[in-house]
Amino acid sequence: MPFVSHPRRSCPRRAGTREAEAEPYVCVPGRSLCSSSPSCSLLPTVCFLTALAEPSSLSPQGRKGFYFHYWALFDGHAGSGAAVMASRRLHLHICEQAGAAELSRAPVTEDNGEVPSDALPRFHLEKAVSHESLVIGAIENAFKHMDNQIAQERASQSISGGCCALAAVYLMGKFYVANAGDSRAIIIRNGEIIPMSREFTPETERQRLQFLAFLRPELLGKEFTHLEFPRRIQPKELGKKMLYRDQNMNGWAYKKIEEDDLKFPLIYGEGKKARVMATIGVTRGLGDHDLKVFSSNIHIKPFLSCFPEVRVYDLTQYEHCPDDVLVLGTDGLWDVTNDEEVASVVMEVLTSYEPNDLCRYTMVAQELVVRSRGVLKERGWRLPNDRLGSGDDISVFVIPLGGPGNYT
Amino acid sequence: MPFVSHPRRSCPRRAGTREAEAEPYVCVPGRSLCSSSPSCSLLPTVCFLTALAEPSSLSPQGRKGFYFHYWALFDGHAGSGAAVMASRRLHLHICEQAGAAELSRAPVTEDNGEVPSDALPRFHLEKAVSHESLVIGAIENAFKHMDNQIAQERASQSISGGCCALAAVYLMGKFYVANAGDSRAIIIRNGEIIPMSREFTPETERQRLQFLAFLRPELLGKEFTHLEFPRRIQPKELGKKMLYRDQNMNGWAYKKIEEDDLKFPLIYGEGKKARVMATIGVTRGLGDHDLKVFSSNIHIKPFLSCFPEVRVYDLTQYEHCPDDVLVLGTDGLWDVTNDEEVASVVMEVLTSYEPNDLCRYTMVAQELVVRSRGVLKERGWRLPNDRLGSGDDISVFVIPLGGPGNYT
Repeated sequence: MPFVSHPRRSCPRRAGTREAEAEPYVCVPGRSLCSSSPSCSLLPTVCFLTALAEPSSLSPQGRKGFYFHYWALFDGHAGSGAAVMASRRLHLHICEQAGAAELSRAPVTEDNGEVPSDALPRFHLEKAVSHESLVIGAIENAFKHMDNQIAQERASQSISGGCCALAAVYLMGKFYVANAGDSRAIIIRNGEIIPMSREFTPETERQRLQFLAFLRPELLGKEFTHLEFPRRIQPKELGKKMLYRDQNMNGWAYKKIEEDDLKFPLIYGEGKKARVMATIGVTRGLGDHDLKVFSSNIHIKPFLSCFPEVRVYDLTQYEHCPDDVLVLGTDGLWDVTNDEEVASVVMEVLTSYEPNDLCRYTMVAQELVVRSRGVLKERGWRLPNDRLGSGDDISVFVIPLGGPGNYT
Repeated sequence: MPFVSHPRRSCPRRAGTREAEAEPYVCVPGRSLCSSSPSCSLLPTVCFLTALAEPSSLSPQGRKGFYFHYWALFDGHAGSGAAVMASRRLHLHICEQAGAAELSRAPVTEDNGEVPSDALPRFHLEKAVSHESLVIGAIENAFKHMDNQIAQERASQSISGGCCALAAVYLMGKFYVANAGDSRAIIIRNGEIIPMSREFTPETERQRLQFLAFLRPELLGKEFTHLEFPRRIQPKELGKKMLYRDQNMNGWAYKKIEEDDLKFPLIYGEGKKARVMATIGVTRGLGDHDLKVFSSNIHIKPFLSCFPEVRVYDLTQYEHCPDDVLVLGTDGLWDVTNDEEVASVVMEVLTSYEPNDLCRYTMVAQELVVRSRGVLKERGWRLPNDRLGSGDDISVFVIPLGGPGNYT
């Protein structure tokens, strides 16, 4: 249910007190073609991090600082405030958390999963913590701090709504793709599709939400039940049998209907229509601190997580060609164009341009948006197969993994 | 950390009031070869369920009743009581729950994922519930009822300890593999390995346990912290920085050490040594109702789940040959013999027997146990590669998916 999408290319510099030099691609909500955000690895976004540790303890890389590339999509709902703010700040929080984790002290690359010598445990029974899991922790905490900042400044800055956030960070040979919401990232490598995220919705997170509601029933405000039923139960059905499932179940079983079961289910609806407390269709993201159930005082934020799932792709493990790409898209893309169709468009458009033509990735992003939007016919916007085009906003990044825009 | 293993072949009949005729393979704990339980599909275990619904509403299959095949491993710890009881009763609970779900009313097979006509919603916005998810729900609830029965009868029947439970149910063309614990099931089909379960341990379930402890800190009895640290923290480190992760994190980040962080972590240790509250190494299973942290009054059961994860394998979607098998094994097998090695032994042993030799599956199970146990040498029980053999009990089922023992 996103209303506004705010992909952004940021180029934060933190050498000393220098602030971020941002060139945001803030897109028009709805059907505008502007919501196609071109690949930007051709003008790599570089973040210099001034090491916080003592210079003497730093590796040569640490002394020089290190850089990362960054792309992110912020798909807003119920107002654009959270999406705009997150698009301007999330990368700064990542910088800050990376500094706090002293990532510059870690080796540039790990040796095929082996624990680098400076990460070896020094104590008996100490768990080895890899550089990769420090980066993941830094990104996770950056999302948390971003969400806290929105919470703190929402009154003074009039920040409205919430947003899904999908961010890709390229650091020391690896892509870290962090997703909180229903956007999606895939890698297309040699025609093969590699999923780089999963969606967080009332259906995919049902058990987490039911578990919380079971342990904290007061969050349901006496209006909702944590149990799921296949449909609303009518009062006249009291005492009859009804299918249900709780926080422990993936299957369905029967129970005798009790008074409490007449309440509205915490999770209700299917697919894109599934909602938490009849209100929101995504279960992770930033913002939404003031979101309440319509005409009630029941807060929804306790059920929403601001934490992303971070997946890692090691770019050094494979020789990439110029046609290998990472695609980030909001649900406006994926609702009507599936992974295979996206891969097919990528292949089709890229082969129609020279491998060293720098605009070819932009053209893929544009084509994906145009195709998913459809063509205006008598019966609304239609796809080539006559299905309805996406009525949602559509934002796409197409990021080359090899070729002339390679990462160095 | 299982001490005793109780695999069992059961042949329950419930035509009218007739009780289960069980021929249990209760095995000797430790290194005995008896812990190899042979395949039993050659003498299929059949469960007749008298339909509970009105005969007039039943399909021809329903009117006749229907049968299922059943195999299960119960790997006990801290006493054999729970494992023995579960091995004698779990199938009866499955029968009962299947009856309550009126599974006999459902069609014999579903058409490649299409919702069968009699499962179509009758109400506006009603969610379609498939026959498969009713079976899953019945098995999930059977585990819950089994656990409740152990709880209720543990005093009068002197039932000690707990057990991991891995059960395979073959019903109407599909295998349902239900796992609660650290046993494992794989299918080997045409040499390919298909995982049919995952293990539930303090490491794989860390976030669920931390989430519970975070919401219900009183369960930690003021002795434990829900945070994980790479090692124990010393009092002199108060105020310093330490890596941690909480219920929301997969990565690691730094925090300033506070008084509360000096408590023992809820989850501590790595791999087979990981423990919940320094006590137990599995996080799902049956029993353990009286399990407490050593020398304290802190109960561990609230952190343990009796619910299995159920995976489904549709036997009708593939033409199986006599060498295709489902292997169930306790952790005593998998700790020293990985999936690929098991597949290799299966292939090796099966090809040395005629396809219609009915003892060939038994010989595979026996060979897997013998190899995982190792040979007694000067420096203990050793595998061919000189690694230590399994010191745990080892139980294996090898169940043919095709050939002369085929399911009809």
